[in-house]
Amino acid sequence: MLKSIEWTGRSLRIIDQTEIPSCLVYKDLNTIEEVFEAIQRLRVRGAPAIGIAAAYGLYLGLRTLEEENRDDFIAKARHYAEYLSQARPTAVNLGWALNRILSDLSKLNSGVRILPVEVLEIAQYLHQDDIERCNKIGEYGSELIEDGMTILTHCNTGLLATTGIGTALGIIYTARKKRKKITVLVDETRPLLQGARLTMWELHEAGIPATLITDGMAAYALQKRKVDMVIVGADRIAKNGDVANKIGTYNLAVNCRYHRVPFYVAAPLSSFDFLINSGDQIPIEERSCQEITDVLGRIAITVKGANCWNPAFDVTPANLIKGIITEGGIYRQPLLKTLNKLNKITYQN
Amino acid sequence: MLKSIEWTGRSLRIIDQTEIPSCLVYKDLNTIEEVFEAIQRLRVRGAPAIGIAAAYGLYLGLRTLEEENRDDFIAKARHYAEYLSQARPTAVNLGWALNRILSDLSKLNSGVRILPVEVLEIAQYLHQDDIERCNKIGEYGSELIEDGMTILTHCNTGLLATTGIGTALGIIYTARKKRKKITVLVDETRPLLQGARLTMWELHEAGIPATLITDGMAAYALQKRKVDMVIVGADRIAKNGDVANKIGTYNLAVNCRYHRVPFYVAAPLSSFDFLINSGDQIPIEERSCQEITDVLGRIAITVKGANCWNPAFDVTPANLIKGIITEGGIYRQPLLKTLNKLNKITYQN
Repeated sequence: MLKSIEWTGRSLRIIDQTEIPSCLVYKDLNTIEEVFEAIQRLRVRGAPAIGIAAAYGLYLGLRTLEEENRDDFIAKARHYAEYLSQARPTAVNLGWALNRILSDLSKLNSGVRILPVEVLEIAQYLHQDDIERCNKIGEYGSELIEDGMTILTHCNTGLLATTGIGTALGIIYTARKKRKKITVLVDETRPLLQGARLTMWELHEAGIPATLITDGMAAYALQKRKVDMVIVGADRIAKNGDVANKIGTYNLAVNCRYHRVPFYVAAPLSSFDFLINSGDQIPIEERSCQEITDVLGRIAITVKGANCWNPAFDVTPANLIKGIITEGGIYRQPLLKTLNKLNKITYQN
Repeated sequence: MLKSIEWTGRSLRIIDQTEIPSCLVYKDLNTIEEVFEAIQRLRVRGAPAIGIAAAYGLYLGLRTLEEENRDDFIAKARHYAEYLSQARPTAVNLGWALNRILSDLSKLNSGVRILPVEVLEIAQYLHQDDIERCNKIGEYGSELIEDGMTILTHCNTGLLATTGIGTALGIIYTARKKRKKITVLVDETRPLLQGARLTMWELHEAGIPATLITDGMAAYALQKRKVDMVIVGADRIAKNGDVANKIGTYNLAVNCRYHRVPFYVAAPLSSFDFLINSGDQIPIEERSCQEITDVLGRIAITVKGANCWNPAFDVTPANLIKGIITEGGIYRQPLLKTLNKLNKITYQN
């Protein structure tokens, strides 16, 4: 199986996702700055994957420290974690992984020389954990899929977006493994075309029938009854079930409601942010105009100096979501109530 | 004012719209085959503009005929009209202009030598008529626009799409001329990016503030209350008010309904097809996969051999349309009833 992220023993090896589908290029990251750049430039992307990448990035920063004092070391770790978490503001997994490490670190009694190794071990644990969580999401989600279904998805939520089989796409892989015949309709996902570049590439590699459409065609596909179910990923989920995900997700959710087609979100529990009450509080990353005006940085599609608006994410209100598929099961409507239970019982870390 | 189409006295001069916005290239078409190619390859596009281009194209075919017999000439004219109308199947204006000429031709008593000149005169009349119709649409439509509004539009419906100021965009030009302060949000309109390439270019030339977004962002803009009104064009309107227009239009209409934002269609009466009862009967052109996979024919965005679905148009049911703005006034809900009146009273040609 392809791995979006691999620890080589000395460096973090990533698939440079900006080069797909033209080339499969691996890149070894040796410093925290290189990890920051890779996350910011979307060489590694997908909420779960950037969480794990940041965890290793923190280690890469800490391993070169010569601090002799434990408190100084931890202060530096906080500083590095803060730095990494700025690479992308919307996905919560980034902050989640880093906070997890900081919290574990403060509880450890190890000497300062050992601490970097402990950080590496936590990163490796989180990495393995992400793989297993993906498998469980795949198991739960695939139960919703019936033989012969056509599933529409947006952006990329597969091998490349996580360190395992993926979230929404992981469900599709699992359903396929269970010999369910499925077809996937893939939104190209402008501006950065993660659907066309990454999801189509993954599905092609996996031999799963897939059809590419532009984002504006999804409504027509729904009208023509070509879609049985929509499944997308998530970058952050608020306490009430509002979901921030790749721009264009909300558009799909509205259209699913109008056409009475079930709209599901698949995400690990690390994507939940119980510190915020609703989607209104999720910071939405606005990226450069050039991502719209210059397709893949290579060809200009509009007049020079054109004004653009480029929100990278949008927020889908909980009421449009049929269910959220996690490694702990499927949370259904009323989301506010079922997630509240989750917050109280399961999600105490 | 820029002219999408101009009769030079000997040939049909068009702006080659496939070259915009990088270059402003004029192309002189001298034969009916060249006109067919220009329409099919979208060098000239927009329902009203291709109607007029086809009218001149018919003349270019007929002027070289050496038929001595009137019936043979008319049979040939029918044959040519049939040929041209195949260039693009969805817009009704193409067939409308050609049928109009054939019908006028059959009523004329002129000798066979004179007939080509008569065809040219009808083409020129239709051309002038299109310009005036655009102005009237602009007048009626601009009454709906209030100072300070932000209007979202899709595809291109301006100078380039007609031989006058345009339909939906013509309304924006007219409102601006009346000194109303407006901002335009422009859907890039994948796959062929007419919004990004053509509408942004037109608005830039006209000095009207415009912001480019990807098609999947429109719903989020509506959710964020950034849009006061949506106006689009039409390629064909059925008797009941269902509207075929550029793919992505239906998506906008559904989102306008959900967000309670008025959704208007602007089109000349030549876009109405009273021979069909509903949108189900409108043929939807499906174009090549390559338009999606290779942006502007220049860069590949997905895996080789990827499967695509590329409907060039979609159908918006009448119930989602607040009103249809024509040169004869604005037709409002119930559209079936008001258009029926239009069919009976106004539209007898």
